[in-house]
Amino acid sequence: MRADFQSWVARNQARLEGVLNELLPRADVVPQRLHEAMRYAVLDGGKRVRPLLAFAAGELAGADVERVNKVAVAVELIHAYSLVHDDMPCMDNDVLRRGKPTCHVQYDEATALLVGDSLQSLAFQLLAEHRLNDDAAIQLEMIKLLAMASGSRGMAGGQAIDLVSIGTALTLPELELMHIYKTGALIRSAILMAAQCGSDNHDNRLDAIQIGRLDHFGKLVGLAFQVVDDVLDCQADTATLGKTAGKDADNDKPTYVSLLGIQGAQSMAQQLHREALESLEEFGDAARRLRELADFIVLRKF
Amino acid sequence: MRADFQSWVARNQARLEGVLNELLPRADVVPQRLHEAMRYAVLDGGKRVRPLLAFAAGELAGADVERVNKVAVAVELIHAYSLVHDDMPCMDNDVLRRGKPTCHVQYDEATALLVGDSLQSLAFQLLAEHRLNDDAAIQLEMIKLLAMASGSRGMAGGQAIDLVSIGTALTLPELELMHIYKTGALIRSAILMAAQCGSDNHDNRLDAIQIGRLDHFGKLVGLAFQVVDDVLDCQADTATLGKTAGKDADNDKPTYVSLLGIQGAQSMAQQLHREALESLEEFGDAARRLRELADFIVLRKF
Repeated sequence: MRADFQSWVARNQARLEGVLNELLPRADVVPQRLHEAMRYAVLDGGKRVRPLLAFAAGELAGADVERVNKVAVAVELIHAYSLVHDDMPCMDNDVLRRGKPTCHVQYDEATALLVGDSLQSLAFQLLAEHRLNDDAAIQLEMIKLLAMASGSRGMAGGQAIDLVSIGTALTLPELELMHIYKTGALIRSAILMAAQCGSDNHDNRLDAIQIGRLDHFGKLVGLAFQVVDDVLDCQADTATLGKTAGKDADNDKPTYVSLLGIQGAQSMAQQLHREALESLEEFGDAARRLRELADFIVLRKF
Repeated sequence: MRADFQSWVARNQARLEGVLNELLPRADVVPQRLHEAMRYAVLDGGKRVRPLLAFAAGELAGADVERVNKVAVAVELIHAYSLVHDDMPCMDNDVLRRGKPTCHVQYDEATALLVGDSLQSLAFQLLAEHRLNDDAAIQLEMIKLLAMASGSRGMAGGQAIDLVSIGTALTLPELELMHIYKTGALIRSAILMAAQCGSDNHDNRLDAIQIGRLDHFGKLVGLAFQVVDDVLDCQADTATLGKTAGKDADNDKPTYVSLLGIQGAQSMAQQLHREALESLEEFGDAARRLRELADFIVLRKF
């Protein structure tokens, strides 16, 4: 990772942490225990890939920094809620997340359930209560995008396909559909919503074709992210991942590795990476951070 | 219940069922099992008090019927998701709801978790994708209202207070705060959002003072609803309620009955009922359905 990019990542992770800290309800506000648990589940953790993509897409679109902050937080809240619910005993039954006890272990299951529910509500509240585009109708489009990316034909739907696929042999297109729902939709929405924060008056505002290319980039990067995740889950040990490793194989879940082998999955990730970079070509240097994030997503070791 | 009101209720319950049926994802759309479970959890059940209040408030404000339909569905989806999650083993561990096996019994816990999550996303999707007010900025206000009513300083927050209050002695103001969060906020949002569907061009459009009176009505009726619920839970048997009766006392939960006794709780409900009707006085006959619903909520036997 180049030093310049490394410092951009560190700076923007700190930026996100600051905004999260400010926008999450304080732990001394009633109901205190719920608010404390919400903060526990969200703050101080993770690579923040989705917010970083949002920040990079916002830079590309010349979008207002304060507006993009809200989008980045909303997407991260949805992601964090899904982790809290996924870790629960009735789902993946995981005790370790980001190197810390999972929410239901640290608190209790009922609280973890409500933490996830409340984080989802908060994401939509933030998108509705702050002005994110001069045109309120475009803001409604953004909310619709996040809602669809989160729901039964998005992230939660991907989880549901995942559930019924345990122990079955999915085809590559079926596995792809599952991951487009489960991971891709939210990553795509992070990029698109940030781009939509570009003001109407701004010279850098993207046209429909450019938004389309960005959308394509989001889909490819989202898929690459999952392929690399499968490879890492198979290779790494628990200490490096910060979560329990090898769970997928233990649970007899279909993955890109189980379908294509490690080498096949790695070459698929490289192919997606190449195509993702191609879709950014016309943007030149303005898309530098998105390009570097694509590299990071594919080349990361954790 | 007067025959005229009875037929209004039946007509509007059928109206809601039709719109729910149309707006919920079809059970043959991937992921089928999740969509089937979402429909199971929402369709064909309940008194539909929140949607009925929305319909009545919409009539009062002269709001477009199609718009109010979306609001009624969104609020009912939030309510239905909360029931699915509340019934789960880690919360109330209930096996019976609306006379049918609860969602996690009929399907499984993981599916029930995702059903609740997906119903919440769908509620916000519907409010964002359909035009509900000529002014998109007002529509953003409506989304914010529902998000706040659902989250940690609304319904989910009320649940969290409920959790920590088991076995403790709440004061009346603490119990009231819990129920304003847990039940009142969503009932209030059903009424206010429906009123906000009134078109800018419509002569019947309510002014700020009128909206304030409606808001007050919503708070009083929401609280009355909960007080009556506590009385019924204590008196009725399981067959009449369609859900397991006497759970609150069994679980050592503070209720209006445990705090005030049955007679005290009943007279509190009557007082709230009177005040609720007073706040509608200036609206005359246009508020007839809201008045009848207030009567129904306080006088119901199930």
